[in-house]
Amino acid sequence: MLQSKLFIKTRKEAPKDEIFANARLLIRGSFIDKLMAGVYSFLPLGFRVLKKIEGIVREEIEALGAGEILMPALHPKTLWEETGRWQKLLGIIYKVTDKDGREFGLGPTHEEVIVDIIRKHTITLTDLPFSLFQMQTKFRDEPRAKSGLLRGREFSMKDLYSFHADENDLKKFYDKAIKAYLKIFRRCGLKPLVVEASGGEFSKEYSHEFMIKTPAGEDVTFFCSLCGFAQNKEIAKVKAGDKCPNCQKGIIEEAKTVEAGNIFKLGTRFSEELGAHYTNEKGEKKPLVMGCYGIGLGRLMATVVEVHNDEKGIVWPREISPFAIHLIEIPSKKTEVKKQARKLYKLLLAENAEVLYDDRGVSAGVKFADADLIGCPLRIVVSERTLESGCVEVKERSKTKAKLIKINKLKAVIKNHV
Amino acid sequence: MLQSKLFIKTRKEAPKDEIFANARLLIRGSFIDKLMAGVYSFLPLGFRVLKKIEGIVREEIEALGAGEILMPALHPKTLWEETGRWQKLLGIIYKVTDKDGREFGLGPTHEEVIVDIIRKHTITLTDLPFSLFQMQTKFRDEPRAKSGLLRGREFSMKDLYSFHADENDLKKFYDKAIKAYLKIFRRCGLKPLVVEASGGEFSKEYSHEFMIKTPAGEDVTFFCSLCGFAQNKEIAKVKAGDKCPNCQKGIIEEAKTVEAGNIFKLGTRFSEELGAHYTNEKGEKKPLVMGCYGIGLGRLMATVVEVHNDEKGIVWPREISPFAIHLIEIPSKKTEVKKQARKLYKLLLAENAEVLYDDRGVSAGVKFADADLIGCPLRIVVSERTLESGCVEVKERSKTKAKLIKINKLKAVIKNHV
Repeated sequence: MLQSKLFIKTRKEAPKDEIFANARLLIRGSFIDKLMAGVYSFLPLGFRVLKKIEGIVREEIEALGAGEILMPALHPKTLWEETGRWQKLLGIIYKVTDKDGREFGLGPTHEEVIVDIIRKHTITLTDLPFSLFQMQTKFRDEPRAKSGLLRGREFSMKDLYSFHADENDLKKFYDKAIKAYLKIFRRCGLKPLVVEASGGEFSKEYSHEFMIKTPAGEDVTFFCSLCGFAQNKEIAKVKAGDKCPNCQKGIIEEAKTVEAGNIFKLGTRFSEELGAHYTNEKGEKKPLVMGCYGIGLGRLMATVVEVHNDEKGIVWPREISPFAIHLIEIPSKKTEVKKQARKLYKLLLAENAEVLYDDRGVSAGVKFADADLIGCPLRIVVSERTLESGCVEVKERSKTKAKLIKINKLKAVIKNHV
Repeated sequence: MLQSKLFIKTRKEAPKDEIFANARLLIRGSFIDKLMAGVYSFLPLGFRVLKKIEGIVREEIEALGAGEILMPALHPKTLWEETGRWQKLLGIIYKVTDKDGREFGLGPTHEEVIVDIIRKHTITLTDLPFSLFQMQTKFRDEPRAKSGLLRGREFSMKDLYSFHADENDLKKFYDKAIKAYLKIFRRCGLKPLVVEASGGEFSKEYSHEFMIKTPAGEDVTFFCSLCGFAQNKEIAKVKAGDKCPNCQKGIIEEAKTVEAGNIFKLGTRFSEELGAHYTNEKGEKKPLVMGCYGIGLGRLMATVVEVHNDEKGIVWPREISPFAIHLIEIPSKKTEVKKQARKLYKLLLAENAEVLYDDRGVSAGVKFADADLIGCPLRIVVSERTLESGCVEVKERSKTKAKLIKINKLKAVIKNHV
């Protein structure tokens, strides 16, 4: 992609009211634009990252056998009254009024809607288990929307719902979902801690949260580096310095954490309240046993930025970087430089590399600063100087040292980046 | 995909309150679910069609050089007051109130938001022209939400915005956009009429609409079959039976039509009102010249269904069918049938065909009815009877006659469907 043609408008300064690294860097790097507190647009660079995260999530969730759907944001108040959650989530659900004065809610979650779909159909044992997921926009009237994409009022979420005949079958799927979640976070360059948590607002059953260590976190998790044992502060039975009760070897540490995902065993709560049944082998109607599984997609992007940044900008993990390679042409009066840069751009594209080619007529300083801010894993510089020795300069974003590489040796160097 | 694993629950009857073919067939075929009037969920089959339509639209719009973004649905009232459209679109914009009583709108369109993004940046002549698009959910408080996906209260839309230094440059892009739109509709199996229209609510400048002939249409278009000349009834200077004023040969006909897309020359209206400028060669600030280009994605799906259906169900055009091939195994006591059907399924997948494999233990009658309702272009049946002669039965959805084809000759038959 030619940088001059993509809408990339970096800024030296972040807006003063943004205090979190994710918002400051993503706005400065032209990944997102702030419309108002907790509400952001994804610009071309940010949209690319979002789509890559979605791609990873889709792949791992489809591997669980789930089918993709898309449910609406506009929900009838009456449906939420059936589960009593219209009252319970008052102050969280945005209320919508139409011109005739009828009330709707903007969905903060979709248990009511998915169960409303299912209850319209006859479900038999041969249908079970099944699972459905979506990547969709949710809305929450968030009092503290000051942490960028970590806590949005409007945000994109992957929510998965599974349906089972009994608790045993739910447990099997739930355990597979834990593994899928770990894979997703690791592919995004994160090291998740899995903690058991209370069901909270959404569930009477137990649940798990996937916590990521970062100073930007609002939660505190006690954990053991050795075996991965972890508990959130509110319900922890350990404290920092204790011997790990799981492996009996490690010492418990404490860190601020962000919750990057959560999964719940809902049991039959929603299916009983809304009347979603299956017919068993005896012809009896039984309430469906459910699980639900969420990942905030923008929040995941924000968490990655909080974890992977330095004083110069973002350091994207390979799989979710907007581009694999940032090719930089240092403007020169010698036409040979542009010619070679273009040739190299085509060569990289032919190797199936995702390349952002900085073809702009601005100074080397501006280009280097933008490249560090945008944070693609590999930077390749073409200049008068590098071409003198038939080379390009290659530098990994996460390293400090650059190397001169002969152009005919470049293919081997980039093979991990295509 | 195994039909038993996908959530496909067809119905014999459509809901009584749905009178349009698109809603009746899409609900019966398990493509969509109705949450309330004008608000639908896309189930796995419908989601696949939606993604295929999105894929075609993305391809043709990216070919115009546009970058993809994603803007929010929740808009601050203050921004809409800047253009005076909060008052003007009263009764169309859904109002949202947060717990502190602040008012927001759910975006029915995004001119205000895109221009708010652009006006924060310095735009120079070297940046121009550029264009940005999104596929995003819009909301309109629609009084008549009785035509299924043709007129939703919540609906998915592709909206593209282009920015130019002058009217000439806008015109160049606008003409290319017309061609891209024609390609999009044709790839979706439709024959669009292009009509010049008034700018309506959104524009003082002129605009074009892309009309599709169908009895479900709410508009009336006069057109000439010979040269493609077309005018909408409200501003037509011709009537049915007239000689075509364009080619002087054809005779003007009249048809009910659906508007499947529209494009507007916005000029400087929004950039002047919101203050979005570029700097010209003399260093002067000039308002950006804009165009906007919309296609309702669910509406496009609905239009295709209105045009392509028969008494048995939907007849999907090849490029947007949820699956290219519907492979049907007729249940049998002979294990050979299932064995051969599975073998064939793997063979078709190996040929890169998108196959829906009906592996369910239900009657041939149910399977045939479902296949006709769902409407994949090619049906392949494996049964005891077909296997007696080493054959499968192959039938195109749009034709009445089925053929017996030797299994080893199948590759050649399906080559147009992969």
